[in-house]
Amino acid sequence: MTQGNGFFGLDSSVRFEGEGSTNPLAFRFYDKNRQVMGRSMEDQLRFAICYWHSFTWPGGDPFGGETFNRPWMRQGGDPLAKAKEKAEVAFELFRILDAPFFSFHDVDVAPEGETLAESIKNLNEIADIFEEKMKTHRTRLLWGTANLFSNRRYMAGAATNPDPDVFAYACGQVKAAIDVTHRLGGENYVCWGGREGYETLLNTDMKRELDQLGRFLSMLVEYKHKIGFKGPILIEPKPKEPSKHQYDFDTATVFGFLQKYDLVKDVKLNLEQNHAILAGHSFDHEVKLAYANDLFGSLDINRGDDLLGWDTDQFAMDVKEMTLVFHEMLKHGGFSTGGLNFDAKIRRQSIDPQDLVIAHVASMDACARALLSAERMLTDGALEKPLADRYAGWDKAENQAILAGQSSFEAVAERGLGLQPQPRSGRQEYLEGVVNRYVY
Amino acid sequence: MTQGNGFFGLDSSVRFEGEGSTNPLAFRFYDKNRQVMGRSMEDQLRFAICYWHSFTWPGGDPFGGETFNRPWMRQGGDPLAKAKEKAEVAFELFRILDAPFFSFHDVDVAPEGETLAESIKNLNEIADIFEEKMKTHRTRLLWGTANLFSNRRYMAGAATNPDPDVFAYACGQVKAAIDVTHRLGGENYVCWGGREGYETLLNTDMKRELDQLGRFLSMLVEYKHKIGFKGPILIEPKPKEPSKHQYDFDTATVFGFLQKYDLVKDVKLNLEQNHAILAGHSFDHEVKLAYANDLFGSLDINRGDDLLGWDTDQFAMDVKEMTLVFHEMLKHGGFSTGGLNFDAKIRRQSIDPQDLVIAHVASMDACARALLSAERMLTDGALEKPLADRYAGWDKAENQAILAGQSSFEAVAERGLGLQPQPRSGRQEYLEGVVNRYVY
Amino acid sequence: MTQGNGFFGLDSSVRFEGEGSTNPLAFRFYDKNRQVMGRSMEDQLRFAICYWHSFTWPGGDPFGGETFNRPWMRQGGDPLAKAKEKAEVAFELFRILDAPFFSFHDVDVAPEGETLAESIKNLNEIADIFEEKMKTHRTRLLWGTANLFSNRRYMAGAATNPDPDVFAYACGQVKAAIDVTHRLGGENYVCWGGREGYETLLNTDMKRELDQLGRFLSMLVEYKHKIGFKGPILIEPKPKEPSKHQYDFDTATVFGFLQKYDLVKDVKLNLEQNHAILAGHSFDHEVKLAYANDLFGSLDINRGDDLLGWDTDQFAMDVKEMTLVFHEMLKHGGFSTGGLNFDAKIRRQSIDPQDLVIAHVASMDACARALLSAERMLTDGALEKPLADRYAGWDKAENQAILAGQSSFEAVAERGLGLQPQPRSGRQEYLEGVVNRYVY
Amino acid sequence: MTQGNGFFGLDSSVRFEGEGSTNPLAFRFYDKNRQVMGRSMEDQLRFAICYWHSFTWPGGDPFGGETFNRPWMRQGGDPLAKAKEKAEVAFELFRILDAPFFSFHDVDVAPEGETLAESIKNLNEIADIFEEKMKTHRTRLLWGTANLFSNRRYMAGAATNPDPDVFAYACGQVKAAIDVTHRLGGENYVCWGGREGYETLLNTDMKRELDQLGRFLSMLVEYKHKIGFKGPILIEPKPKEPSKHQYDFDTATVFGFLQKYDLVKDVKLNLEQNHAILAGHSFDHEVKLAYANDLFGSLDINRGDDLLGWDTDQFAMDVKEMTLVFHEMLKHGGFSTGGLNFDAKIRRQSIDPQDLVIAHVASMDACARALLSAERMLTDGALEKPLADRYAGWDKAENQAILAGQSSFEAVAERGLGLQPQPRSGRQEYLEGVVNRYVY
Repeated sequence: MTQGNGFFGLDSSVRFEGEGSTNPLAFRFYDKNRQVMGRSMEDQLRFAICYWHSFTWPGGDPFGGETFNRPWMRQGGDPLAKAKEKAEVAFELFRILDAPFFSFHDVDVAPEGETLAESIKNLNEIADIFEEKMKTHRTRLLWGTANLFSNRRYMAGAATNPDPDVFAYACGQVKAAIDVTHRLGGENYVCWGGREGYETLLNTDMKRELDQLGRFLSMLVEYKHKIGFKGPILIEPKPKEPSKHQYDFDTATVFGFLQKYDLVKDVKLNLEQNHAILAGHSFDHEVKLAYANDLFGSLDINRGDDLLGWDTDQFAMDVKEMTLVFHEMLKHGGFSTGGLNFDAKIRRQSIDPQDLVIAHVASMDACARALLSAERMLTDGALEKPLADRYAGWDKAENQAILAGQSSFEAVAERGLGLQPQPRSGRQEYLEGVVNRYVY
Repeated sequence: MTQGNGFFGLDSSVRFEGEGSTNPLAFRFYDKNRQVMGRSMEDQLRFAICYWHSFTWPGGDPFGGETFNRPWMRQGGDPLAKAKEKAEVAFELFRILDAPFFSFHDVDVAPEGETLAESIKNLNEIADIFEEKMKTHRTRLLWGTANLFSNRRYMAGAATNPDPDVFAYACGQVKAAIDVTHRLGGENYVCWGGREGYETLLNTDMKRELDQLGRFLSMLVEYKHKIGFKGPILIEPKPKEPSKHQYDFDTATVFGFLQKYDLVKDVKLNLEQNHAILAGHSFDHEVKLAYANDLFGSLDINRGDDLLGWDTDQFAMDVKEMTLVFHEMLKHGGFSTGGLNFDAKIRRQSIDPQDLVIAHVASMDACARALLSAERMLTDGALEKPLADRYAGWDKAENQAILAGQSSFEAVAERGLGLQPQPRSGRQEYLEGVVNRYVY
Repeated sequence: MTQGNGFFGLDSSVRFEGEGSTNPLAFRFYDKNRQVMGRSMEDQLRFAICYWHSFTWPGGDPFGGETFNRPWMRQGGDPLAKAKEKAEVAFELFRILDAPFFSFHDVDVAPEGETLAESIKNLNEIADIFEEKMKTHRTRLLWGTANLFSNRRYMAGAATNPDPDVFAYACGQVKAAIDVTHRLGGENYVCWGGREGYETLLNTDMKRELDQLGRFLSMLVEYKHKIGFKGPILIEPKPKEPSKHQYDFDTATVFGFLQKYDLVKDVKLNLEQNHAILAGHSFDHEVKLAYANDLFGSLDINRGDDLLGWDTDQFAMDVKEMTLVFHEMLKHGGFSTGGLNFDAKIRRQSIDPQDLVIAHVASMDACARALLSAERMLTDGALEKPLADRYAGWDKAENQAILAGQSSFEAVAERGLGLQPQPRSGRQEYLEGVVNRYVY
Repeated sequence: MTQGNGFFGLDSSVRFEGEGSTNPLAFRFYDKNRQVMGRSMEDQLRFAICYWHSFTWPGGDPFGGETFNRPWMRQGGDPLAKAKEKAEVAFELFRILDAPFFSFHDVDVAPEGETLAESIKNLNEIADIFEEKMKTHRTRLLWGTANLFSNRRYMAGAATNPDPDVFAYACGQVKAAIDVTHRLGGENYVCWGGREGYETLLNTDMKRELDQLGRFLSMLVEYKHKIGFKGPILIEPKPKEPSKHQYDFDTATVFGFLQKYDLVKDVKLNLEQNHAILAGHSFDHEVKLAYANDLFGSLDINRGDDLLGWDTDQFAMDVKEMTLVFHEMLKHGGFSTGGLNFDAKIRRQSIDPQDLVIAHVASMDACARALLSAERMLTDGALEKPLADRYAGWDKAENQAILAGQSSFEAVAERGLGLQPQPRSGRQEYLEGVVNRYVY
């Protein structure tokens, strides 16, 4: 391991060394200024380092406690002082990775107080520090959010809580979080559903709870406009965990919800690979469905374990999977306010500070490699041309007329009577081979 | 086994013998005239026998062929003659079970012809026979549907096919199926998504395909009104199989789809336990969500295997699970046009004709037992009272005002600042004990 | 809720009130002195209350912290004093439930010290208290065990750790735990695999680790004999969580492992429903396979959620599932040293102390109800008679000869040439109906 | 698509064109004579084309029938003549792919007769043709096997059938299959468990059935020795499908079974990726566990869908996954009698004959690419060096003594008392980055 100063023992930032490098602290593919489809690689990928997994999680799991023993997690002492120490290390990592963005929950950065007012005061005190830091660092805020799930007051949900006082408390907390996000120039505000869901239907009135959630979001959207926050509100679909059932199950479910409560215009999605597979979908599926319904916002970049039934939030390393996602994204012109947020945590056995750096480097590189594959695949029309060809029949005027609502059922049925449609090969293996050509 | 005449060797219908009976060919709980919440048990449960699993499936699975060797499935001979033999046996079973309803796909009852026109002619010829039969049998038609998935022409979907000719052919087939359903007095018309989904996203334009599906259903709804068909169009959500991804994934997904294409009013849902669990939901969840969004239509009654990843369509035997579903249904006044359709198949080793009777009897009895538990639980308010109590805070005027859109985010947030909400027990185990009291 | 004295607000023990009772603090079926197949119900079920879920778990999950706020979990203060307070409440619950047994991990009952020696001293100090308590309470120790997974030293396993010092430390800890178990009259000693498994194969030498684990158990068996501990060592199969892969995956895997390291005679299994379903098996399957290989030891009684991919350890409430398990157990004469250990935890929203009592009562009752169903089913031979009939052909001498190794392949093959075997119905639905007759 | 003669429209064999080729009918990486760790690429990979998926499966699934319409699957006509046509096409494909091996079930290649004797006669008639073909083609037989699952006689299992006549019939069929395999120079004989498992435990005596299976295999091993068949008997683990539970669940389960019936020496494993993931394991895990217990035999090369619960048998395309498997294999010196058998089927929409060629080419290329990555990774010691370092402590004499059984539990425990073991980083992300360096 490299030996240097600071928490990570690294004096300089991680650099691009090219594909031949074997240095785990250098990039092989991530060359931030390289142009990819008209934007720099940095601007296409828009990486954000998250506060919670990297600086707030102590390494525990349901069967064991802390493994990391970070200095700022020590027992006792002034919580605010420890929060400031943590902020120092966070910006040290941002510098080392030359990260364009970061992201946080309110409680990640500042300690909860005895009262909500005190919690908000703490949050703003840390935000002051962030503002100072951001004058000398180039790292900007991708998004902020409020943690409405860890404290026991939220054990039965926040906006969907059976107790309206909890709903009100959540409003207070979210207001402070979006205010701080706004002041720090955050480009989005995220609402992850946390415990908006249920443990058992025996004690749950799902209809009531969904109405509460719809109203909560509508009020938040009104407030966002009032304060001039330009970015979207992002919902992050997840099907289960911590709740048995989470209301924001997946893209399709959230789409139904947003339509019901007339929120489609102002609310977009923050999608994650691990949440996708827990819902039984590929990452690619979720992204394509979001684009199909004009709901694409941002991405949490990580990976789950296909053989496990819980959220493992591992660092994304699969180039093929990301190639398909970035291909779709590039097709639509790339991110606007969104980015690739590292909602990924090192394994609890990765206890060396440098493991945190190495993990980010390896995953950023896998993303960069995927971006390059996606660019070539899109430029070549390798998938787009066969796709257009497959649906070409529908481009004919008579068939466009059907889709445009200019034909009756009987008329089309009548036409069907004379047909003997012959199936054409779906060519799946050919297309898989094409993708492999761009990935390996 | 009882020995008698006919295919099933049973001369008389299955009778109610009471809880003490050990006769597998008698009902212990299903006493059709017994009153349950203001309707007869028969009228609450509205059982339908399905044609496909009971009379059309030969016992095959992906690793092996026919096991049942039904006479009407013999190789060779006139297909229409065999279809008539099958109809005789079907009505024999309806009589034995005293079934109030049945259901079918077009190709279950009549052989496909060389052309669509010929297939439709065959269908109508069998429909004539059904009409005759229904004059002397009390069994009515719960719903009809068209099989748009078995023939190779539909291998890439029907309404969502990349080839518009297949779309037109499907319109022709569905028109005939709904016409026949209407003529036979069917109370609903069902659209199961079959292969409306994809095998791989590499060759799929999901947005195009969903638009096609939306247009198809809109045209069908227009047609239904035109011919005066009073019942609803029912979509049957299923997440996967045969396709890797089925567009009608689950209740929530279909809700989003129906809103997008403005179909909420005319299209309802036909829900199934096995499809629910494949999507990661409990049966109860799907039913409650459907009621919450005014989409409840009918139920396919069966069960899946929690440990297997495919549709096993076993006969429903779990009284507890059904008690919760029927409790919700009774709470909303019970079925209107819907019913309990036996989309359930005997295992391929259950090769004796009487196995088919015994399976239906056992499952009808489990349903009846569940209905009785649900009735008592609802009458006692055993779950409803604790539920109302849990949400009582929201019934206050000030909180209703929030839900009614009469409060701003800032105002509620301000109120939250002064609160220290105290969590209350969710009492899950207490409620589980209550349910057990009604089930065992 | 009943109001009385003590932590649970209950002055008297829970009593049997009969099936008609609606009191959540009374038994409807668990009548401890009732005779079931020659033993009292209490002696057939041998309930044990576990220390960890009931008294040590604070209500946290991966997304949130403590909800229960038990007095003995307060921050600060003398750990040993708090351990003693906890012991008081534990024996209060044992009394209220009239529990015949309890169970614990070393760290559940006594605080870890700075050194292993100090931890062992603490453990023995609490054991002294237990000894005193057990003089006046009738609750005995079903089993003890050591927690080799929570402390960060065990993050990469205990016996399977790449560091032999951790192996040695684990030996020290286990020695103390079995010594204490022995001194308290424990009837079994349990080894749950904890983190004996891997997070990634990239850093794991599975062969080495299995050899380490085999040696560890062999040494423990030798030691057990040395100190005269009569009960078996019990392994508890679990497929995953906390590790990605746990070496003691399921009954079949452990059977292979025990044979390889020649441990079949001394080591038996402690099976759990939730672990069974995580491995893709029914509880019934695991129990039957254990009996088939003479490995049955004891049961952890709980239930998982079929729709979730992690260990939920909910209180067992499904009478049908337990009926089948108890049927098998009764068939083999019931427990010897084993029992029904409540490895079950109330949901984190069940924050009232009485929830803990109510949960145990409801689940004990479900077990009792299942035992009664199993007894009747076995007495009637309801499943056993059809089973014997199905395999009757194998009881013929010529076929027993095959199984006894007295026929050659060619000879049997030759006989096969002349046969046209006709399949017989598997009668699955009939048998499901039979089971329902005993359960509902 | 290329246009030429024959069923596939291809006159010449597929050739190696190098990494830059975009021709789907050429190899980019599979250069059969290239040396990889001392053997040619062809000899390291030992590809086999399977008969069943490629030539016998008509494209059906549980919801639809034939899509491929292969000429030799036409209705009517002489079955043996059609089998000969099929053999022509099979050897045409072997030639086009320059396949070193093929594999088959008895019923894939020859039609079943009215009696077992007739079936065997048919099989031998086709085997005569194969013998002729193999004189002029270089393709050899990797393995043969018997299909003991498709015919209804086997609906309740073959060796595990409750009816001993079915057991005898299975012996007859297997004897013929291994005889033919032997005569054709097959290098292994495979037993896939087919329906050796259960649909429901209600009608199953698992202990009896496992004893039957153990005896069956013992007799087969005796027979194999008798006829001088040198290759191993291979069991193919699979956890479920077609049965609810398959007895040969996974590597670990089969290991336990083989030990119990004393078959470890003569029976090895044929492992498959899709079966591995259905059992909850990675492919890599199964392979490593097989090597750890000296059970590695051969591989079925395909892939499942991580999001589906059934056997999809898709063509293997994931280079990373195979790199890890081949790395293990190369470490152990590569295949002896085993090979990479393409137990993979084109999707049912891939209806063009060339799809079959393209699929094999793409997958062979993915395997070749993985082999090259594995070679470099192994040669560099990229994973092996960190692994050895991690366990180095165990190589010390004192710790080897523990494993060798030269220490008592008390002695090691005593040593543990003085230790404070410090955990070391597991470095998972570093290692993932290393693997990516070799794959992308």
